[in-house]
Amino acid sequence: MASVFGGVEGGGTHSKAILVSADGQILAETEGPSTNHWLVGVDRSIETINDMVQRAKVAAGLDPNTPLCSLGMSLSGGEQKEAIDKLIAEMKDRFPALSQHYFITTDAIGAMATASDCGGVVLISGTGSNCKLVNPDGSQVGCGGWGHMMGDEGSAFWITHLAVKTVFDAKDNLAPPPHDVTYVRKAMEEYFEVSDLMGMLPHLYRNFQKSHFAAFCKKLAEGAAAGDALCQHVFTQAGRVLAKHVEAVLPKAQEPLLSGDMGLLILCVGSVWRSWELLRPGFTEILEKSDKSQGRFHGYSLLTLQQSSALGGASLGAQSLGSSIKMDFKANAIIFYKHTFNTHQ
Amino acid sequence: MASVFGGVEGGGTHSKAILVSADGQILAETEGPSTNHWLVGVDRSIETINDMVQRAKVAAGLDPNTPLCSLGMSLSGGEQKEAIDKLIAEMKDRFPALSQHYFITTDAIGAMATASDCGGVVLISGTGSNCKLVNPDGSQVGCGGWGHMMGDEGSAFWITHLAVKTVFDAKDNLAPPPHDVTYVRKAMEEYFEVSDLMGMLPHLYRNFQKSHFAAFCKKLAEGAAAGDALCQHVFTQAGRVLAKHVEAVLPKAQEPLLSGDMGLLILCVGSVWRSWELLRPGFTEILEKSDKSQGRFHGYSLLTLQQSSALGGASLGAQSLGSSIKMDFKANAIIFYKHTFNTHQ
Repeated sequence: MASVFGGVEGGGTHSKAILVSADGQILAETEGPSTNHWLVGVDRSIETINDMVQRAKVAAGLDPNTPLCSLGMSLSGGEQKEAIDKLIAEMKDRFPALSQHYFITTDAIGAMATASDCGGVVLISGTGSNCKLVNPDGSQVGCGGWGHMMGDEGSAFWITHLAVKTVFDAKDNLAPPPHDVTYVRKAMEEYFEVSDLMGMLPHLYRNFQKSHFAAFCKKLAEGAAAGDALCQHVFTQAGRVLAKHVEAVLPKAQEPLLSGDMGLLILCVGSVWRSWELLRPGFTEILEKSDKSQGRFHGYSLLTLQQSSALGGASLGAQSLGSSIKMDFKANAIIFYKHTFNTHQ
Repeated sequence: MASVFGGVEGGGTHSKAILVSADGQILAETEGPSTNHWLVGVDRSIETINDMVQRAKVAAGLDPNTPLCSLGMSLSGGEQKEAIDKLIAEMKDRFPALSQHYFITTDAIGAMATASDCGGVVLISGTGSNCKLVNPDGSQVGCGGWGHMMGDEGSAFWITHLAVKTVFDAKDNLAPPPHDVTYVRKAMEEYFEVSDLMGMLPHLYRNFQKSHFAAFCKKLAEGAAAGDALCQHVFTQAGRVLAKHVEAVLPKAQEPLLSGDMGLLILCVGSVWRSWELLRPGFTEILEKSDKSQGRFHGYSLLTLQQSSALGGASLGAQSLGSSIKMDFKANAIIFYKHTFNTHQ
């Protein structure tokens, strides 16, 4: 299978696999559950990957017993070298027919490789969150991406947690809620099928499932769209803290990232960005007030992918072999919001 | 074993069991690990309880095959009726020789029953945190106690988390640290045996052990005592948020709790109170500024137990049978701090 490359996009809730030819043609796409090994464990992660890729081979009319040329994986949780070396070793051992070569990078880098080869900022807000600045020289600066125990600010998990915590604190009289909690409390009781706060404990501990917990965020987005002030508030707060991730990496941005007509390119990845209109007030407010890095920061454009970041993963996997996949960056990502700061302020 | 009552104090890290006679004489004491069933599971929780109590019977020269009159347990995590009914059913089933009757209450109520039969506030800060107001008529009002995913503010877990999060946010440039993080970062690397922030991930996820994570708080107390400003800061913040728990329940306090010479009695339980001098600036500041409940709140006294709250558990267990244990409340708890507000302000 000389010229077939595989790519995987691994999220905290869903995953995708693609097969692509050297000329950039997508031969097959399949889907699966979470492949974040921190969340589901190494075994489940690699079994899901194998299953998706083997199904993709069949869908593309290829022999599943013939290994791919390479498999490039863009994984949430794919940061730590020791852990990804272990993942690759296990895959080689258990699934010899899967691929000849393996490459693992983070979800952020895979997404960036799908949209551009000039760098920019990747800002992920899905089940979890993460921010990565990629400079034109390839150097990277990160902010966040530490998971729900030490970060995930602005993610679906975080938005859910903030809303639920507001209900708990209001009930306890520990902190006054910024807005009435009635809608959120009722939506919480319905979504988690509980009748009181005590009932939430199994969802937080014994039966905690990050992706299920985080998916309540969708109900909050519906509440915000219907006009509930607390639902709107938690999204505004998420917008604020996501923008703070951009602020955090901005001082390390090399000149070419800031000097283009589009300003800083921020690639927005993850399901929470579907609620951009709800994030927008907080997001734009923080960047409007931000330090402009000695006048270097004069605007920004938000992009969204039109292709799975599995494609970027496949491309990086091919590159790691000295091969390449032809990429159409203009088609892979489009701008959905653009802002230029008023320089006369 | 007509007149021998058992009591258990179950914490997030350590547990204790005692045997006591109706005249209040303590016949034996034993210790064990965590019995919080939310943290260690039902099986481990009840096995630890059985083991501690059976060892106590032997230590008291009693026949371990003869059941106690009653076993009253004061458990962190002992709140939810359905869960404690299940615990009791399992204990009866698996350990028929343990006790004739069982009674389970929360760590807060067990502590209060050790110190007083007139009520007051119990403010727990150990591995986790919790606050409970007990009125003279027996009615209760709680704040917190939801565990590390939804509260535990001011606990050892929370203090550790705040310190570690400050290091992460400083490294990420996400939030400027209020003080230099060098000491905390080095202490963290030493305690958790890691060389970078990535190394912390297994401690937060795959191998997360709340009691081990929370015990880093002791190193922070040492740092604060040695003059490190960030260590001092996290304890001041803990003092603030613990006082906010008292503020939260205060409006529900019945008159007799506030009108005594000692002011509101606040029973302070848990290892974090050993660092009272570090908590004090934040704690006293919040109560000084607090709404005085229309002039009803004119001062407070902080008490600490001289006996395990297993004794209160045993006493409540005996009462639940219509029996009683003679209690010497003055000896069981002593005042370590007293403050009267300046009423001329």
